[in-house]
Amino acid sequence: MRALPLAAALLLAAPVSAEVYTTGELGVVIERAAGSVLIVSHTRRAALARIEGLGDLSHASVTFSPDQRFAYVFGRDGGLTKIDLTTQTIANRVIQGGNAIGGAISDDGRLVAVSNYEPGGVKVFDADTLELVADIPMESKTVGLADVPGSRFIVSTWDSGQAWLLDHSADPANPEITVFENVGANPYDALVTGDGRTYIVGLFGEKGLTAIDLWADDPQPVRFLPDYGKDEPDLPVYKMPHLQGWTLAGDSFALPAVGLHQLLWVDAATLTESGRTDLHGQPVFALARPDQREIWVNFAPPDNDTVQVIDTMTHEVIQTLTPGPGVLHMEFTPRGREVWLSVRDENRIEIRDTRTYEVIGEVEAQAPSGIFFTDRAYRLGL
Amino acid sequence: MRALPLAAALLLAAPVSAEVYTTGELGVVIERAAGSVLIVSHTRRAALARIEGLGDLSHASVTFSPDQRFAYVFGRDGGLTKIDLTTQTIANRVIQGGNAIGGAISDDGRLVAVSNYEPGGVKVFDADTLELVADIPMESKTVGLADVPGSRFIVSTWDSGQAWLLDHSADPANPEITVFENVGANPYDALVTGDGRTYIVGLFGEKGLTAIDLWADDPQPVRFLPDYGKDEPDLPVYKMPHLQGWTLAGDSFALPAVGLHQLLWVDAATLTESGRTDLHGQPVFALARPDQREIWVNFAPPDNDTVQVIDTMTHEVIQTLTPGPGVLHMEFTPRGREVWLSVRDENRIEIRDTRTYEVIGEVEAQAPSGIFFTDRAYRLGL
Repeated sequence: MRALPLAAALLLAAPVSAEVYTTGELGVVIERAAGSVLIVSHTRRAALARIEGLGDLSHASVTFSPDQRFAYVFGRDGGLTKIDLTTQTIANRVIQGGNAIGGAISDDGRLVAVSNYEPGGVKVFDADTLELVADIPMESKTVGLADVPGSRFIVSTWDSGQAWLLDHSADPANPEITVFENVGANPYDALVTGDGRTYIVGLFGEKGLTAIDLWADDPQPVRFLPDYGKDEPDLPVYKMPHLQGWTLAGDSFALPAVGLHQLLWVDAATLTESGRTDLHGQPVFALARPDQREIWVNFAPPDNDTVQVIDTMTHEVIQTLTPGPGVLHMEFTPRGREVWLSVRDENRIEIRDTRTYEVIGEVEAQAPSGIFFTDRAYRLGL
Repeated sequence: MRALPLAAALLLAAPVSAEVYTTGELGVVIERAAGSVLIVSHTRRAALARIEGLGDLSHASVTFSPDQRFAYVFGRDGGLTKIDLTTQTIANRVIQGGNAIGGAISDDGRLVAVSNYEPGGVKVFDADTLELVADIPMESKTVGLADVPGSRFIVSTWDSGQAWLLDHSADPANPEITVFENVGANPYDALVTGDGRTYIVGLFGEKGLTAIDLWADDPQPVRFLPDYGKDEPDLPVYKMPHLQGWTLAGDSFALPAVGLHQLLWVDAATLTESGRTDLHGQPVFALARPDQREIWVNFAPPDNDTVQVIDTMTHEVIQTLTPGPGVLHMEFTPRGREVWLSVRDENRIEIRDTRTYEVIGEVEAQAPSGIFFTDRAYRLGL
């Protein structure tokens, strides 16, 4: 058995006295106003470095290479930045579009896809070089891009109400394309369930949601929750909830209501509503703790200083926490024992124990928004 | 924002020409006969180094620290070895008992527990120093040790038919202990479901299985599948199936039958049998591909040269593969695109694409058995 090449051995060998950082402990925090990101460690509850010059990071999202070495940051200005977490430098950066809304990495780690408002459609890049591999115009703004197992991506078109399934397994440059019509008026967001099976689309232009079972022999869009959507004209919608917030807890989905101070429980088997929980404000994210026993919810303004915790067995609110103004995002440590909360308006991240709910750490950050730990490298449907 | 300390920077900074290895790409392969382990990379499909001197590694298992830096190897001879994956050295090793059967790490990463045949009971160690923190004799051999969220462990007692829940959250050295009586005669293995909620115990001395819902206000052992177990005296049981092989696929468990050439499908909600699939031999592991669309099964002698793939929608065998003699274990890459198969009697690991089923790589190993990738650092109930 050959030993490691010397160079690699040097990289891995640590003087006894030295600190060793592993990709397994890392994460990336978006500093949207500053156009920078922090590289953080969730095991040390600390920030390690700041990387600047990433452009407009409002609504930015992050995915990771399968070995956790690289973070791909998708900026609102169409910038796609590849960060090397081991050197804490920008490995590569391209402006791939004029106005982008998110991205995904294929399950083989070879392709990175970006969905665009301007010029619309989806562009697919080589994950190593960021060279353009495929350009798929769809004559529409695109939203809700996610990876589907088997070197595939799926995305929805805002203007034409379609979903496009792109299969790059045979020829990365020429994906096999399946277009699903009549997904609904103006899809605004979507997600793929954690098993990569079901694509769920939120609609802005009409009520209800659409699901597509990608395991079916002949997948078809199916409308469900026909009453779901904004249904109280006197109550403005401050922020459309993130469908990424959808989480399967036991046999139910916990779904943030639109424009209501409620969490909706949806039976996963029948896709029918099974209950509601009254909340402190309009929910934005409703995230299951990794053990799925609790749902953590943050809120739209003016209630975005608060986080509530709901028991998935009783559907009751068991905690109302007030980390501070501008709680924009929450990320659990991989096994769910701790949670990181972005407190934008106080320029800090608050870390709490998810069993005692006590504050156990804090990290300085400039107007932090999204928090992304490297365990996402292993998840499907992101 | 302070930069990294120099030493750490050195560790993370790579000359452009050098190879960089990350903990995110690594795994550990047990070489049981040689008493050694290989450190491997699943993204490179390669072995990086061999570490020797780990003693008797038959039935050995591995868990990882939350940052993926350390692998804890639990040997059959009571040896507990802590391997530093970044230096590829043995960081620490203790002989904690005379005859051990497995271990687990707490969800806070602070405690490592080992279950023993001899002297019996469970010993709990400091994950950093491997110093003994708690010794819990149970007057019995113990099996089926797993972590439960909240700094807890659960284990079953072979001789007395109990399950012990150990809660180390308040005082690591003095766990709060809950004993469940009448779990059944001679538990031989057990598992905690991926959400950390349900403890399922396999029984050697009688038919049926036992489930304990750890989310219940007053958890109680519940017997189910009353006919499950060896029920054909003319068909010897070559190997008891591994309950770790239990996997929830959709709304069903796929369960290896005992002494039968069958896979049992069990409705997860009712814990009743919902169907059977005839197999090539006596199943040992039945593992769901991470997207849960397929179950991969290996077999006891004399059929252990074969692997079968079952569709979780149709319950039909869709592939019968013959990697070679002595397929002891299977491990999927984190997003399930590839699978590693130990082919013990040919001293190699075979790597296959899980979409095309084709062989895409091979790694030399000395009589390999268990394969453990570092994504396990993030999983509950291991």
